[in-house]
Amino acid sequence: MYKKSGIFALLINPTANHKKQMKVSIINIGDELLIGQVVNGNAAEMSRMLTAAGMEVCETTVVGDNAADIHKALERCLAISGAVLLTGGLGPTRDDITKSVLCDHFGCGMREDAEALANVSRLFAAKGYPLTEVNRQQAWVPECCTVLNNDLGTAPCMWFDTGDGKVVAAMPGVPFEMRYLMAHRVVPRLAEHFAVGSIVCKNVIVQGIGESFLSDMIKPWELSLPADIKVAYLPEAGMVKLRLTMRGGGAAMMDKAVAGLYELAADYIVGADAESVAEVAARVMKERGLSLSTAESCTGGRIASLLTAMAGASDYFKGGVVAYSNEVKESVLGVRRETLEQHGAVSEETVRQMAEGVRRLTGSDYAVATTGVAGPGGGTAEKPVGTVWIGIASAHGTEAKLVRYGDRREQNIARTCNEVLATLVRTVRKQQR
Amino acid sequence: MYKKSGIFALLINPTANHKKQMKVSIINIGDELLIGQVVNGNAAEMSRMLTAAGMEVCETTVVGDNAADIHKALERCLAISGAVLLTGGLGPTRDDITKSVLCDHFGCGMREDAEALANVSRLFAAKGYPLTEVNRQQAWVPECCTVLNNDLGTAPCMWFDTGDGKVVAAMPGVPFEMRYLMAHRVVPRLAEHFAVGSIVCKNVIVQGIGESFLSDMIKPWELSLPADIKVAYLPEAGMVKLRLTMRGGGAAMMDKAVAGLYELAADYIVGADAESVAEVAARVMKERGLSLSTAESCTGGRIASLLTAMAGASDYFKGGVVAYSNEVKESVLGVRRETLEQHGAVSEETVRQMAEGVRRLTGSDYAVATTGVAGPGGGTAEKPVGTVWIGIASAHGTEAKLVRYGDRREQNIARTCNEVLATLVRTVRKQQR
Repeated sequence: MYKKSGIFALLINPTANHKKQMKVSIINIGDELLIGQVVNGNAAEMSRMLTAAGMEVCETTVVGDNAADIHKALERCLAISGAVLLTGGLGPTRDDITKSVLCDHFGCGMREDAEALANVSRLFAAKGYPLTEVNRQQAWVPECCTVLNNDLGTAPCMWFDTGDGKVVAAMPGVPFEMRYLMAHRVVPRLAEHFAVGSIVCKNVIVQGIGESFLSDMIKPWELSLPADIKVAYLPEAGMVKLRLTMRGGGAAMMDKAVAGLYELAADYIVGADAESVAEVAARVMKERGLSLSTAESCTGGRIASLLTAMAGASDYFKGGVVAYSNEVKESVLGVRRETLEQHGAVSEETVRQMAEGVRRLTGSDYAVATTGVAGPGGGTAEKPVGTVWIGIASAHGTEAKLVRYGDRREQNIARTCNEVLATLVRTVRKQQR
Repeated sequence: MYKKSGIFALLINPTANHKKQMKVSIINIGDELLIGQVVNGNAAEMSRMLTAAGMEVCETTVVGDNAADIHKALERCLAISGAVLLTGGLGPTRDDITKSVLCDHFGCGMREDAEALANVSRLFAAKGYPLTEVNRQQAWVPECCTVLNNDLGTAPCMWFDTGDGKVVAAMPGVPFEMRYLMAHRVVPRLAEHFAVGSIVCKNVIVQGIGESFLSDMIKPWELSLPADIKVAYLPEAGMVKLRLTMRGGGAAMMDKAVAGLYELAADYIVGADAESVAEVAARVMKERGLSLSTAESCTGGRIASLLTAMAGASDYFKGGVVAYSNEVKESVLGVRRETLEQHGAVSEETVRQMAEGVRRLTGSDYAVATTGVAGPGGGTAEKPVGTVWIGIASAHGTEAKLVRYGDRREQNIARTCNEVLATLVRTVRKQQR
């Protein structure tokens, strides 16, 4: 592989073909990130938004609430990129120092911003809370910045022009505030401030084949891709998301690339233009006007949770039963006691009766069921941890499938969800042509 | 706040009091991270493990699959820290170039490692898969590295001594492989290689009060903390995790600090030594030998999913019903049709009948229920998006509570889960003294 890296470094190196592209660095500030108490979802979300807007994120860095480190990171990132975006350290608590660092960096003092103060007052009045001194300090900003109002929170977004055509923007680390400020303030202003090219992205969801086997299977396709199209393999819990990113090029070029992928891997492709198997499953049910219910043992409600996390779930999802104990399997889903006694809770017979039971109970067109040994405990020689039965019931009958995973509970639950939802998609497509 | 930063920068600056402490940098490699397709959970998890082992993470950086950028980041991090840990770019696919970059950096060639090859062969034999050429290349490593075997995956962990007492370790980015290699190979070897001090961490879960109000409430406590103890506010979906980190000091010092916090904020503290409200709820039920069931509408199975994600859920969790549609509320949970017609699905009467219905159905000691308008659609003037009723039923009777959140579906679901589980904890403690 290392021998190949020379070639492929070129193929996948985002900087190789697009020297002119606008580069952005991200600095996320917070001790909680460095001690690992918080996963840095902001970097991913900001990167996604910037990439979609045609900008290139060249680096993301996390530093603690430490003036010297924030300074150093800011200077370094300004040297390698045209814009530096900071999050965090703007909160009302005593460990937030980003504003004072920015004052030092730009050599200015602080001022109370009237618009920011009005915004803080409005937010607290709306909640019927008093405006405390701590909160009032949220309206203080470096003198040399332009305030971009934050309708959703008390910490304003601050925009700095460095004088040499570069830009620094600081915003709160609270995810939904950052998301709002990026979408409505920062990204549009960046796109206006810099000439940015367009980018087209496409996800293809592949399930039921390992990353390396997929790689071998689609190698000819990957090698024949135009240089403007990059591919990233994003494996996750038994599925692989293939992310195609095209800089320049036209819609036809991307369509051709996706078509070529289907030629080689159609059997494993669950769908395109989706972020997850659950999203494809929801789409397939809605498109056909079919309703769904769930009977979950080892997945413990995760499937229902994944489906209902997406807006519009009520269009097709009736509900489900989390049949964690055998009593519930029996009393609520109507699994026969003899079945549980003779075959056990983790068996083909049980999963069939669970799927049929919840379909009967809810009157849904389709029902999915899961029962298995998620682990770490509960395994036997005959049914080791990772043994999972999935079932799908519809007017066309009931199908059951045995899958065997490893010994990690979290992974077993996640893989089962992807497996059952991918199987649902394939079953519905087969039965409802 | 900025006026204070001088003082508090000292208080919270991890480097200020601990010059001797072992410093580590983390470099996570992958285009998928820079385009935001994958959240960088590895950085958080590695940081948590290193912090717990008494090492200080001074920076985490993400760079793309780009030789020049990986080189630059590696050199910079070696300059500021004693150990640099890399993840990613070791996979079997053609966009993985980390090994060739390490060869260049250390000026060595590649060799096929016998132990690594045996491991790759074993893993594929176990799955009954053929060993492809691509997979065999996983056993090739830089000549100058020590291979730390990866029992869980095909990419070995590679340990490099720089010659001037510093260390570089590269491992795969697959989260569970990274986790295993960090725990069993890298962290112990780092602790042995460097003299590392000890660290004590404590989480206190606070719910039902906003970050800034909590900050005001506990300010005297925070100001009186010994310099060895740092506090981080980690707000998340209606709860705040207060993370106390003590370097040096003794157990008594930490106990005293936590006791002082309880004196000021006992009403809002759900529990200590836990990562989430769900974890505290599970503990409270298990400790008292009580069983639980769930009836979820707007949370769509998330509560059951949070509880069953933790091993040992079957000790107390019987199961639940995801009553997403009104038919299911009526037919499965026995909510009266008149109630749904007169008061609607989002009402005190409905949530009470949901909780009582699932408790009856499962025979559990306690039952929790949720019904609300998660959004973005479904709101009315009387019941806007964010209107949520929660209910708790037990032998002591049924209690219901109305909460009003904002207009973001994801946040409304997450806050409802924390609210209902925190209310369960408080109710059980009150009723089961």
